[in-house]
Amino acid sequence: MERALDHLIDLAFAEDIGPGDITTESLVEPHRRGRAFILAKEDLILAGLDAVRQVFLRLDQEVRIISDFEDGEPVRKGTVICEIHGRLSALLRGERIALNFLQRLSGIATLTRTYVDRIEGEKVRLVDTRKTAPGWRTLEKYAVRMGGAFNHRMGLYDGVLIKDNHIAVAGGVGAAVQQVRDRVSHLVKIEVEAADMEQVEAALDAGADVIMLDNMSIEEMVAAVEFIAGQALVEVSGGVNLERLKDLARTGADLISCGALTHGARSVDISMRISDDSDS
Amino acid sequence: MERALDHLIDLAFAEDIGPGDITTESLVEPHRRGRAFILAKEDLILAGLDAVRQVFLRLDQEVRIISDFEDGEPVRKGTVICEIHGRLSALLRGERIALNFLQRLSGIATLTRTYVDRIEGEKVRLVDTRKTAPGWRTLEKYAVRMGGAFNHRMGLYDGVLIKDNHIAVAGGVGAAVQQVRDRVSHLVKIEVEAADMEQVEAALDAGADVIMLDNMSIEEMVAAVEFIAGQALVEVSGGVNLERLKDLARTGADLISCGALTHGARSVDISMRISDDSDS
Amino acid sequence: MERALDHLIDLAFAEDIGPGDITTESLVEPHRRGRAFILAKEDLILAGLDAVRQVFLRLDQEVRIISDFEDGEPVRKGTVICEIHGRLSALLRGERIALNFLQRLSGIATLTRTYVDRIEGEKVRLVDTRKTAPGWRTLEKYAVRMGGAFNHRMGLYDGVLIKDNHIAVAGGVGAAVQQVRDRVSHLVKIEVEAADMEQVEAALDAGADVIMLDNMSIEEMVAAVEFIAGQALVEVSGGVNLERLKDLARTGADLISCGALTHGARSVDISMRISDDSDS
Amino acid sequence: MERALDHLIDLAFAEDIGPGDITTESLVEPHRRGRAFILAKEDLILAGLDAVRQVFLRLDQEVRIISDFEDGEPVRKGTVICEIHGRLSALLRGERIALNFLQRLSGIATLTRTYVDRIEGEKVRLVDTRKTAPGWRTLEKYAVRMGGAFNHRMGLYDGVLIKDNHIAVAGGVGAAVQQVRDRVSHLVKIEVEAADMEQVEAALDAGADVIMLDNMSIEEMVAAVEFIAGQALVEVSGGVNLERLKDLARTGADLISCGALTHGARSVDISMRISDDSDS
Amino acid sequence: MERALDHLIDLAFAEDIGPGDITTESLVEPHRRGRAFILAKEDLILAGLDAVRQVFLRLDQEVRIISDFEDGEPVRKGTVICEIHGRLSALLRGERIALNFLQRLSGIATLTRTYVDRIEGEKVRLVDTRKTAPGWRTLEKYAVRMGGAFNHRMGLYDGVLIKDNHIAVAGGVGAAVQQVRDRVSHLVKIEVEAADMEQVEAALDAGADVIMLDNMSIEEMVAAVEFIAGQALVEVSGGVNLERLKDLARTGADLISCGALTHGARSVDISMRISDDSDS
Amino acid sequence: MERALDHLIDLAFAEDIGPGDITTESLVEPHRRGRAFILAKEDLILAGLDAVRQVFLRLDQEVRIISDFEDGEPVRKGTVICEIHGRLSALLRGERIALNFLQRLSGIATLTRTYVDRIEGEKVRLVDTRKTAPGWRTLEKYAVRMGGAFNHRMGLYDGVLIKDNHIAVAGGVGAAVQQVRDRVSHLVKIEVEAADMEQVEAALDAGADVIMLDNMSIEEMVAAVEFIAGQALVEVSGGVNLERLKDLARTGADLISCGALTHGARSVDISMRISDDSDS
Repeated sequence: MERALDHLIDLAFAEDIGPGDITTESLVEPHRRGRAFILAKEDLILAGLDAVRQVFLRLDQEVRIISDFEDGEPVRKGTVICEIHGRLSALLRGERIALNFLQRLSGIATLTRTYVDRIEGEKVRLVDTRKTAPGWRTLEKYAVRMGGAFNHRMGLYDGVLIKDNHIAVAGGVGAAVQQVRDRVSHLVKIEVEAADMEQVEAALDAGADVIMLDNMSIEEMVAAVEFIAGQALVEVSGGVNLERLKDLARTGADLISCGALTHGARSVDISMRISDDSDS
Repeated sequence: MERALDHLIDLAFAEDIGPGDITTESLVEPHRRGRAFILAKEDLILAGLDAVRQVFLRLDQEVRIISDFEDGEPVRKGTVICEIHGRLSALLRGERIALNFLQRLSGIATLTRTYVDRIEGEKVRLVDTRKTAPGWRTLEKYAVRMGGAFNHRMGLYDGVLIKDNHIAVAGGVGAAVQQVRDRVSHLVKIEVEAADMEQVEAALDAGADVIMLDNMSIEEMVAAVEFIAGQALVEVSGGVNLERLKDLARTGADLISCGALTHGARSVDISMRISDDSDS
Repeated sequence: MERALDHLIDLAFAEDIGPGDITTESLVEPHRRGRAFILAKEDLILAGLDAVRQVFLRLDQEVRIISDFEDGEPVRKGTVICEIHGRLSALLRGERIALNFLQRLSGIATLTRTYVDRIEGEKVRLVDTRKTAPGWRTLEKYAVRMGGAFNHRMGLYDGVLIKDNHIAVAGGVGAAVQQVRDRVSHLVKIEVEAADMEQVEAALDAGADVIMLDNMSIEEMVAAVEFIAGQALVEVSGGVNLERLKDLARTGADLISCGALTHGARSVDISMRISDDSDS
Repeated sequence: MERALDHLIDLAFAEDIGPGDITTESLVEPHRRGRAFILAKEDLILAGLDAVRQVFLRLDQEVRIISDFEDGEPVRKGTVICEIHGRLSALLRGERIALNFLQRLSGIATLTRTYVDRIEGEKVRLVDTRKTAPGWRTLEKYAVRMGGAFNHRMGLYDGVLIKDNHIAVAGGVGAAVQQVRDRVSHLVKIEVEAADMEQVEAALDAGADVIMLDNMSIEEMVAAVEFIAGQALVEVSGGVNLERLKDLARTGADLISCGALTHGARSVDISMRISDDSDS
Repeated sequence: MERALDHLIDLAFAEDIGPGDITTESLVEPHRRGRAFILAKEDLILAGLDAVRQVFLRLDQEVRIISDFEDGEPVRKGTVICEIHGRLSALLRGERIALNFLQRLSGIATLTRTYVDRIEGEKVRLVDTRKTAPGWRTLEKYAVRMGGAFNHRMGLYDGVLIKDNHIAVAGGVGAAVQQVRDRVSHLVKIEVEAADMEQVEAALDAGADVIMLDNMSIEEMVAAVEFIAGQALVEVSGGVNLERLKDLARTGADLISCGALTHGARSVDISMRISDDSDS
Repeated sequence: MERALDHLIDLAFAEDIGPGDITTESLVEPHRRGRAFILAKEDLILAGLDAVRQVFLRLDQEVRIISDFEDGEPVRKGTVICEIHGRLSALLRGERIALNFLQRLSGIATLTRTYVDRIEGEKVRLVDTRKTAPGWRTLEKYAVRMGGAFNHRMGLYDGVLIKDNHIAVAGGVGAAVQQVRDRVSHLVKIEVEAADMEQVEAALDAGADVIMLDNMSIEEMVAAVEFIAGQALVEVSGGVNLERLKDLARTGADLISCGALTHGARSVDISMRISDDSDS
């Protein structure tokens, strides 16, 4: 996660501070020290504390950050998430960038937890998708884990998902699975998308490790799960929302994938209060 | 916008394709050609066509993209947003990245338009904030303009906003405004945050170009606008939502700033259908 | 592969040309055109034609490269691998860099083919390791495929290999496998290293997808393969060389991993002849 | 050397760790500490200790590395090269990358030493060439020095070598040498390639500082050295191997250049043992 | 300023040290320590101490730099600007790069002070332009401030300057100002260039915040200032030199912009004396 | 030169255009075309045409640039240096950056030519130094060549210059020269700095290829040149200016090095006139 975070912090500093924070530069002497409190303004699941740390470390190598929480824990409205001691100019410059990371990542973790709670006790695994903000993949998938769900593949390089177009080009599911197996590491599983029962059968015959039931009705899914009978893992996908979640979980599928965990999340409300150390 | 977009596309390719799209590499010969249609699955305001173009150009320098729409225009559910001709392998690899850009930017433009429509006819200017996803500032602010609203400053370098902490450190509003003026270009205006009438008065005396009324009641805002009487621009901020928008507009303020335009937006539903050119 | 290649070409130009090819700049007018032939000076398996292409394209966007061969094909000593038409200055500057890529990658493919030929007809899969020159991982693994062998995981992110240290820290194989499964995508298989029969049993009980027999004798391997009996894939590793290869293949293991394919390869002999277009 | 090493470490981390070491992340708590020993598994000449240091410093800023050896020294099979104390997760993540550097650089130093020993006592200087792995030039040339040989020019920018093609284009050796002298710093010497006695004479007349005898027989070389008679340095090149080395040294040439030092080296066998600090 | 400085230091190290300082590497053991004094060889205004600090910190993280001066202060010929303690090899390698920064930036500050002194007591503001060395904008504008003058806009993104061509394309000053206002933040002022009285009038009518009088005679400027009468700020520009400065200041204009502050400055004479710590 | 130029253009676009040219974006439609003329406003020696080309190519891949001049040629005041056809928005955005390159490089070439003319007919070589603006080394040294002078070494990597401190550390000139020879390529010459006759003798005895006479009087130089008598090249350095140049040339030295060529140059006056293609 560190490299992805580093790159985004680079971009964030370039776009927000650029040639200089002209207000703070004009008003705050470099060595003046201060203190800041980051506050939850609504109930949330925390994710992104390390981003906060890295942002302020860039601006002041001696900053100290103290928190009673760890990523993945719930924080109640009105609670202090963490306390930051360092140069006042660093606090003022980094405030918005740090909050932008923390609000967005906690937003995803918080939304994910709502979904996870809905299927508590079910043995199905809720997983994310590749529908993430470009540049944010590693961070958003981390936030999903903090929310209590699981990750699907990271990208096109660490898992195989054979879709319609691939099958058409390869000349059938069997040929597609075989060609991919010859190319990829034996540690990578092969998943095949199926839109109906016929395709499920073909995928199973081709030796798919995982079969994705795409946009099927609950009844079709139940039938498919029974037919597959443990010979492959089963993922259900398409139109996943809070309302249908329980029903999807009860189809017997092993995995439910849900794009909304990342692309449907809004930032949660978090603010920062800064004070000069000479205040009392 | 080009540089910011370039950086994000770099990160997107690294995180999504990385060492290789092992599925497509195994199955699709490099020179096979195809066609794709990008479809609106809900009503939306379009933003991000250029991102789509740049993503596919990286994968196939001879790709052609044809569209009847321009950014900022409304697109109805079920409409083809654009058609793409190029290498099949490029279409398969770029699909998710291109959609991730388009869905997010159109999501912001679409949400913004809802706000803008609510205050149609009012002379107030709806503006965004710095509450954007790190790395996405330039793109999100572009999407806000496509949605019909206006931009506040891009970052800490192209506008001055003097807040509580700055004033405390400088020893008063008057001193703060003066010190900043000496440091910044004569083309940059100075805005001062005020939480009550006393601070409004002080800001006005200090020669602020713009005064931000932060978290005031509608009545206080009306009083402040009257008091300022055109000697400075007036921005209202804090707790801005669709319900209060009309009332805020009628306070007589020149600007309403709203963080939700960017950090409260979700991606809109857009999909892509790919077909092999040998299909018929 | 493109990104890794791009980065290495960047470094190669910086280190070889740097501030300028002072010889060519002094002597060759920019627009003079020439022709070059790349020649195999020994029998080899070709790998790296695209690197040659990219190197010269950086120096002359209109260069043309013509070849009767594709990567993975055998080329006999004395044969012209490809012909290059372009600016004479580009040919002179790019010669050494292009050859350095081609000789090294073809060296790996050629050595790999020797190994692959030795176990022709056996159903075992010969795979590489992570013992590659830093910066060259993607390219060297590509050359291994061109040589006819297969790839193990690309890095620490697209496959799990649980070793001694991991097991000790986690408190047993069972705990280790379970903790990893909760963290990684369902598309990633889990391999466990085992040094003796007891560890093989533990790995099997823990539900390992693949078991690596590390530095066992042929007899132990045969016993382990029988014991595992298809419930997991079996990889043999350690001390793999041309002499033992056939015996290892006949243990019934599914995979033989061999670091020497990459770290034991030397560059093959390839040269380039350049001529001025005005020559005849 | 630092910059080149930094770039390769960047690439190595990206290709080997990428979005994360999913095994170690799942199993090893960040603050657990450990110890590692790097062991020579064969006799070798050491090169690359600093690369080991830099790799682990990236993963743990407080790592300590203790060694009884310095680069350039011989290490016997079975000896501990160095001991490393730091975070267990850093040791596990950095192991392969650190070894890949150390094995390759020590491999070059070790091979080079074999060559150097063969001509001990002769006053000729054994030098490397530009036949290095792209991206590795500075490091490989450093390893050659650690092996006891000398460096030829680093690249096309810090030395002039006029070849056939250059001479043809410039219209003769004399013209070529003159044009280059006018362009380059007075601190750069000019070397001219000669394939026969006639060309040797021409090079000498043209005022070459160094003359390279390319692919000549031992007899021709002896004759050329006599003819040149100290008016220029003499380098012999082409078909240099261990067998011919002594004879080449006795031609009286000042320099023998040998591509095999870098492109013919294989990695030497070095391994790493890691243990948890709570072990005893 | 930090980011711009970081980039230039990167380039400076690459171009000056590149693959290595072959002289120092050959002669100075890495751990030998030394001391250096940086000396003013002529009277100057200091600018660039931080660049000196950053250059040496890259080469030796424990370097200590002691100075009695701060940027912006005058230093007399023969005075020690600062003292540097650290590794001898770092002092030798960094000397030229550090001086190149310090001489150039102090050169700009020194020249600027000459201009500023000439208009002491006048209330006009002397400002710089965008005529800076590519890559050096932020640093050169910083040096201008150290010299006692003020900055115009940093670039094309933080201020609007509407020129002839813009007006022609937009179809008149009024239209141009309006279109720009709709695009830019309310914190950005709009300046319009005017070459004669008619254009001054048009700019004023269009609501320009600032009017630039371009290449007018002193008399015309006086007339224009009177006409504008405080309704917009007035900048005079074109042919500004030391001789005319006083007269320009007395036109009543608010700002005088002068490209020569940056593009007409020469480096001031500063040298460095290094000594080995074992010297006495 | 291309890489250095590329880097500076990157920085120039970032610092001057950054998130956008808000004026041009607001006013000029992307496809509108225009024409520009670059004009010499004083007599000059041209250098930097390629920088102009690269700047505009970044903004408009189809731009056409036509010129009657080549770098190194004199251009009279009032002459059109080149004509540019392309998108109007590209011309407006690139104008300042292109001119900043052209004015600075032509400034160096022009100043250099003045020096070169002063010693016309003398056989001494006028060379530059490492006193260049950080980031600009390759470009400034190119401009010096265009002005008719020669280059000293590019940096610390392509030539050896042994100074006082080096000699002290190494324990004498002889030891210093020997240690360096063992480290560097045989194509690199060794220059030794000498402040008096004693040091000249020592340098000669040590086998220096070049001896630099540092800050000597004309008489001392003449004596030193006679003493050296062609056994080494002689460079004179220190206090070189137009007045002393002729006398320095007549000392019989081979080289005169002069820092002022680069660090004492000011930008020459060049402007650009842009017109819309629909103008007539």
